[in-house]
Amino acid sequence: MSYFEGIAPVRYAGPEGDGDLAFRHYDPSEVVAGKTLEEHLRFAVAYWHSFAWPGGDPFGGQTFDRPWFGDTMEHARAKADAAFDLFEILGVPYFCFHDADVRPEGASFAESKRNFDEIVDLFARKMEGSKVRLLWGTANLFSSRRFMSGAATNPDPEVFAYAAATIKACMDATHQLGGQNYVLWGGREGYETLLNTDLGRELDNMARMLSLVVDYKHKIGFKGTILVEPKPQEPTKHQYDYDVATCYGFLKKYGLEDEVKLNIEQGHAILAGHSFEHELAMARTLGVLGSIDMNRNDYQSGWDTDQFPNSVPEVALAYYEVLKGGGFTTGGTNFDAKLRRQSLDAKDLVAAHVGAMDVCARGLKAAAAMLEDGGLEAARADRYAGWDAAGDLVSGSLEDIAARVVDRGIEPQPRSGRQEILENYVNRFV
Amino acid sequence: MSYFEGIAPVRYAGPEGDGDLAFRHYDPSEVVAGKTLEEHLRFAVAYWHSFAWPGGDPFGGQTFDRPWFGDTMEHARAKADAAFDLFEILGVPYFCFHDADVRPEGASFAESKRNFDEIVDLFARKMEGSKVRLLWGTANLFSSRRFMSGAATNPDPEVFAYAAATIKACMDATHQLGGQNYVLWGGREGYETLLNTDLGRELDNMARMLSLVVDYKHKIGFKGTILVEPKPQEPTKHQYDYDVATCYGFLKKYGLEDEVKLNIEQGHAILAGHSFEHELAMARTLGVLGSIDMNRNDYQSGWDTDQFPNSVPEVALAYYEVLKGGGFTTGGTNFDAKLRRQSLDAKDLVAAHVGAMDVCARGLKAAAAMLEDGGLEAARADRYAGWDAAGDLVSGSLEDIAARVVDRGIEPQPRSGRQEILENYVNRFV
Amino acid sequence: MSYFEGIAPVRYAGPEGDGDLAFRHYDPSEVVAGKTLEEHLRFAVAYWHSFAWPGGDPFGGQTFDRPWFGDTMEHARAKADAAFDLFEILGVPYFCFHDADVRPEGASFAESKRNFDEIVDLFARKMEGSKVRLLWGTANLFSSRRFMSGAATNPDPEVFAYAAATIKACMDATHQLGGQNYVLWGGREGYETLLNTDLGRELDNMARMLSLVVDYKHKIGFKGTILVEPKPQEPTKHQYDYDVATCYGFLKKYGLEDEVKLNIEQGHAILAGHSFEHELAMARTLGVLGSIDMNRNDYQSGWDTDQFPNSVPEVALAYYEVLKGGGFTTGGTNFDAKLRRQSLDAKDLVAAHVGAMDVCARGLKAAAAMLEDGGLEAARADRYAGWDAAGDLVSGSLEDIAARVVDRGIEPQPRSGRQEILENYVNRFV
Amino acid sequence: MSYFEGIAPVRYAGPEGDGDLAFRHYDPSEVVAGKTLEEHLRFAVAYWHSFAWPGGDPFGGQTFDRPWFGDTMEHARAKADAAFDLFEILGVPYFCFHDADVRPEGASFAESKRNFDEIVDLFARKMEGSKVRLLWGTANLFSSRRFMSGAATNPDPEVFAYAAATIKACMDATHQLGGQNYVLWGGREGYETLLNTDLGRELDNMARMLSLVVDYKHKIGFKGTILVEPKPQEPTKHQYDYDVATCYGFLKKYGLEDEVKLNIEQGHAILAGHSFEHELAMARTLGVLGSIDMNRNDYQSGWDTDQFPNSVPEVALAYYEVLKGGGFTTGGTNFDAKLRRQSLDAKDLVAAHVGAMDVCARGLKAAAAMLEDGGLEAARADRYAGWDAAGDLVSGSLEDIAARVVDRGIEPQPRSGRQEILENYVNRFV
Repeated sequence: MSYFEGIAPVRYAGPEGDGDLAFRHYDPSEVVAGKTLEEHLRFAVAYWHSFAWPGGDPFGGQTFDRPWFGDTMEHARAKADAAFDLFEILGVPYFCFHDADVRPEGASFAESKRNFDEIVDLFARKMEGSKVRLLWGTANLFSSRRFMSGAATNPDPEVFAYAAATIKACMDATHQLGGQNYVLWGGREGYETLLNTDLGRELDNMARMLSLVVDYKHKIGFKGTILVEPKPQEPTKHQYDYDVATCYGFLKKYGLEDEVKLNIEQGHAILAGHSFEHELAMARTLGVLGSIDMNRNDYQSGWDTDQFPNSVPEVALAYYEVLKGGGFTTGGTNFDAKLRRQSLDAKDLVAAHVGAMDVCARGLKAAAAMLEDGGLEAARADRYAGWDAAGDLVSGSLEDIAARVVDRGIEPQPRSGRQEILENYVNRFV
Repeated sequence: MSYFEGIAPVRYAGPEGDGDLAFRHYDPSEVVAGKTLEEHLRFAVAYWHSFAWPGGDPFGGQTFDRPWFGDTMEHARAKADAAFDLFEILGVPYFCFHDADVRPEGASFAESKRNFDEIVDLFARKMEGSKVRLLWGTANLFSSRRFMSGAATNPDPEVFAYAAATIKACMDATHQLGGQNYVLWGGREGYETLLNTDLGRELDNMARMLSLVVDYKHKIGFKGTILVEPKPQEPTKHQYDYDVATCYGFLKKYGLEDEVKLNIEQGHAILAGHSFEHELAMARTLGVLGSIDMNRNDYQSGWDTDQFPNSVPEVALAYYEVLKGGGFTTGGTNFDAKLRRQSLDAKDLVAAHVGAMDVCARGLKAAAAMLEDGGLEAARADRYAGWDAAGDLVSGSLEDIAARVVDRGIEPQPRSGRQEILENYVNRFV
Repeated sequence: MSYFEGIAPVRYAGPEGDGDLAFRHYDPSEVVAGKTLEEHLRFAVAYWHSFAWPGGDPFGGQTFDRPWFGDTMEHARAKADAAFDLFEILGVPYFCFHDADVRPEGASFAESKRNFDEIVDLFARKMEGSKVRLLWGTANLFSSRRFMSGAATNPDPEVFAYAAATIKACMDATHQLGGQNYVLWGGREGYETLLNTDLGRELDNMARMLSLVVDYKHKIGFKGTILVEPKPQEPTKHQYDYDVATCYGFLKKYGLEDEVKLNIEQGHAILAGHSFEHELAMARTLGVLGSIDMNRNDYQSGWDTDQFPNSVPEVALAYYEVLKGGGFTTGGTNFDAKLRRQSLDAKDLVAAHVGAMDVCARGLKAAAAMLEDGGLEAARADRYAGWDAAGDLVSGSLEDIAARVVDRGIEPQPRSGRQEILENYVNRFV
Repeated sequence: MSYFEGIAPVRYAGPEGDGDLAFRHYDPSEVVAGKTLEEHLRFAVAYWHSFAWPGGDPFGGQTFDRPWFGDTMEHARAKADAAFDLFEILGVPYFCFHDADVRPEGASFAESKRNFDEIVDLFARKMEGSKVRLLWGTANLFSSRRFMSGAATNPDPEVFAYAAATIKACMDATHQLGGQNYVLWGGREGYETLLNTDLGRELDNMARMLSLVVDYKHKIGFKGTILVEPKPQEPTKHQYDYDVATCYGFLKKYGLEDEVKLNIEQGHAILAGHSFEHELAMARTLGVLGSIDMNRNDYQSGWDTDQFPNSVPEVALAYYEVLKGGGFTTGGTNFDAKLRRQSLDAKDLVAAHVGAMDVCARGLKAAAAMLEDGGLEAARADRYAGWDAAGDLVSGSLEDIAARVVDRGIEPQPRSGRQEILENYVNRFV
């Protein structure tokens, strides 16, 4: 019997639909800007938060009571059943997972690997009878105590090796399952105290690992995108993949900027002191926008709350950047979001996704409407129009330009930035 | 009559010295690690905060009552007199200034320039009779309303040109006065709202300006270092020179990383979510550590408070990074610090610098002692020692490494990071 | 000629209305939950930000170019003309002001008072020919350097006296103009450093001033409400009126909780680490909800940005608390909001208010609909229903209750908190 | 064999002492300001962090490998042995514990209680042969899922009852062991979302529980102090005991301010946006300073890091407030601090306490020296001296005072706040 017994597949019921378990805004087949919403949004469910997280926090333990919690392969298979049931109920086209989410840890690397391979095969079989596909796979290199001081950046080369072997297994699985991307989140690649840390060596080792990953991708013919996920801190005091600009500098330093893109999360943007749209705009500008984790942090909490999105205005500005960049190619919208630990019921898990998908659908439609209307782009073009008519004013050397300023008696006249008018404009769409 | 009438040159009186205006720890001639404290610390007074800032904040106006406040050249000369009096009283080897600190704004660029040149000549004459030298010059491209939407990144190319002309004047002045560095702080190079901003164009323009600066430096034979100053925000919502890692990525993107270094400020590090020592260690690692602004922000205030340093433990960790990197070359310790606006008296201005110089002297001596003792470096070497003995474990491809993990049954064993023991160690020195 | 020449009174044009200067959601005469929107929202324009603020920030000076900027009574009268023109254009029912916003400072208290009285008389005459009324008056006890160390809490009793005299003048003016409330914001009532501060004495003096105000209100027969405005910091490092709970404790300590209510600002809530709805709910619960300042802070900036509201979901949750508390009595919705300093034009000033009024109207209508629907209140009632059926389980002493736990074998069973379902519910209305 | 095998009792070795496990500054018998350091500081070890915490964080599990980890009474007894071994090694006069730290959870309340009573008896026997005493006991009302939605403030009255029974058991144990205080930390007394929360009811219930505690204290003749511990958030989004001022308002509202004092933690002060010295000064001023948790949060992390203290300047300012208030009576210095999760070794646990005790000793000695020197108090007295000579200036009504301002032509003259000079003064002592 399904864990979700009694919960029917969620259908589009329109804005005036009733009940907690109906889409009011997400009609997968609705066409916007030339593509269906399903094709635009490319939703993915995250295996870890939805199926492997027990509901603990730093001051309390497990609150969720799931029949598949346990350390055996039987539990792992029951978990997979529940997961695919949820994918079906939601009608999502994608899911994402880490190795550690899906299989019990074995007594050795080899045993962990065997457990993993068996579940990956199970996934492959389940996917044959389902429309759900793999958005990305990744390796959990942060939960086990062996990774407490880092994976690629660990002071112990045995951990580097162990991490490399783990990544290989996860890349192989991702490739086998037709994954669209492979993600690296360096949750322990950073430091707890500078006092014991050799920054230069650790950055070099992190780059080495990433180069190995890129080489292996080409070797096995994996066509997906390699993605790095920025986050400034937590669990560590400082993480090397701090934000989009920092990741870009890292890729550039090690010559990897053409091989690797970014998976950008709203909550991580907030932790780094940025808005989500800033991170997306910066990534688009730098040519490294890959995929998104659409889960918010609470503005009043200083830690990573990983909540389902619920603000249409914020989500609309995010999708505006995505659409302006041409939309997702291999990327998509992953909900790296967890229920609040008091949300105990199966229905909570379904409803949280339903609400989030509706919020994203509203946001994307608003973004598409703004782009089509063209108001923001026209205002921007007008604001910088002087550059198109600058003539020789700004050409040549510093001396050349300085001479022209004096000769022509240049005294620039400020023009309004029109921020409030533009904010009002956005509010017409959200 | 001097503004500082009645205040004698500050002397070293030893730890048990008395009074508010004596050095207790900064003996300029004390030799530590092969250099005098004066040579190590290379203190500079900041002209703007100490002589041009009236004491206002967003909710209140001028509190300071200085005889040189006013808009005439006479006031500007009186200000210069007071400034050089303070340099003398403190015995500092350096000062720093913006064009707008030292001269009244004219009705045109040309008049502003004439005013500026006259004061620069005055400085040159005063420096002949003084030991004080110029640590760095810079252009104020943020206070005037003409720069409200940016200088190099302004949507109006006339502002770019005006900024270029201003920078040229300031570089010329810095060169004339034998400055050790030229600094660019992009206080308005950023955005207030993404809605009206073309990130890509603005970044390109900012890089273009920096390239012009580098070219001009070589053209005129300026031997100092070009420095960019990271700051994440304030006055703007977002500034492009966010932090050390972001600046590095920017330099790298535009091929400027060998020409430009960074001037790093404690307060800006805090605003960006970093510790000061983090920013310094990162800059050292990336090869871009140039100079420091030694002024702190309040940990409970979310804005740039620019306070004089007063925590020896924090300052010690900062100088540890500086010394580990070989010490300053053209850089130094600038106090980009302002009195609290209630600190009205001449004595406050002197005492604030005296206290800050003492804190820095204590910090540097502690840092030198830690480096000489070698405890931290030995612990670090020990922690990473496995890499020196890694043999072939981590060589080759991802597959090679993965195969060895299985073949050799690698199961890494965590070792203590010893953070508290290292923190206790540091506390022996501060 | 009006400063707003060419800008017609703003009219309601419906959601599909066109142009930057039309209401799309605020139809003042629309009836919701038994009152018109105008009666519910009670909008007020703030004189200071809209007419007295020059556009400066800590790194730059005046950007706005208003014909009434200047220090003469003639300028003050021109400013009043512009202000009443804007009130007319917007059709707002209220405005608010400080003494310092409306008159030039004189050479003495007496002269400042004469200037003030003259402008107040001018306001009285203008109000005869207008529908605009005074929501509240207040005294500026923070901009002048005489208040740099506090007003009621100043270490100098002469400042206390001067502040008292200033407050009396402002209360008299508020009473004369039929003000609905009198507000005290203690912008300098706090400290910059604990090292020089006598907390106990300062709190006592602040309470003494508030008692004097309450007594004077009764003496002159002022029927409005006395309001204190919480803010945690800025301009000072710490302000005594930190947040709602702190203000309540202060009022309670000094026996003023029945005489004084609070004016609560969204931006100040955020600075204090709270959501706006939290502060409003807490004030409602403690019986001290008076009025609101509806201006937001930027979540990525650590200072008081005082922006016009633009998030309907946030504003809806705020008005939900207001409506749940029975709606405003003497209070209203004041826009203590300033244009961004790059928004130079008259049209920006009008449009910013128009957009804000629309956002508030959407928020209030959503809040009213949620209350009418009753979903949140029903969920809450259900969640706590056990208390109505608790019987004797929780009566008596600690021993009594403990004995029953053992005797009855009590083992509580957690129930879902349903957070995501409730968030989805709210999203149906916003 | 002891877990700490090979680690000798820690001795005072003087500032130049060697090794990681010697006191350099904490000589328990050193007399300062009329009392020994041991009497002043009243150090306590926290059972939970030092013996029950496994080293997990939100992204990773257990890192510590302690022989006493497990769910049996045998493990609990082994843990007690290790704990008392550490108390002995450190020579601390006090410890603190929650029920859940010391005993395995039973299948029912009654079984948990039996387990607890047995361990409490064991503690009593161990204390007979030791000098260690109980600083405070407390109940863990936050880790079990039954408390996920609050203890006293739970929507389910059965949880209130269960919490009451648990508190009674812990108060009984504290009384039995001669505890100096009983502490309530309301880790789950708050909300995760306002949407499902009835603030008024929850506050009333929280007050009801506290009243029950106070009544029971008097009933059983417990002479210790009842302490509430402020914390703004984490684990919940908002906690009712936000900070000192909020707790005071709560106590005042419910008439408990003479019965209950506060246990104030440095880390919680920082989370609430305050300095530690602020919270202590405020508590002293309001008459509710009880005891302290001396563990810091990282200024760059937004969550509760609970680190051992390591900044002498910060600790000195904290003890200055404690000493100025007359020193501890029933309170003391508890290290509610946990090792970093990478600090795996027994030696780390000892060294962390040794370093912290030394930092506190240095801080207390500096604070005592400042108080004896009297510089800060003299400066403060001088700053407010005008109030002693204010005569009738500020007496009478608002009108009386206003009249005098005009009559006497009062124009206050600002005086310097001397912040930097006072900061320099403090630096002479730390």
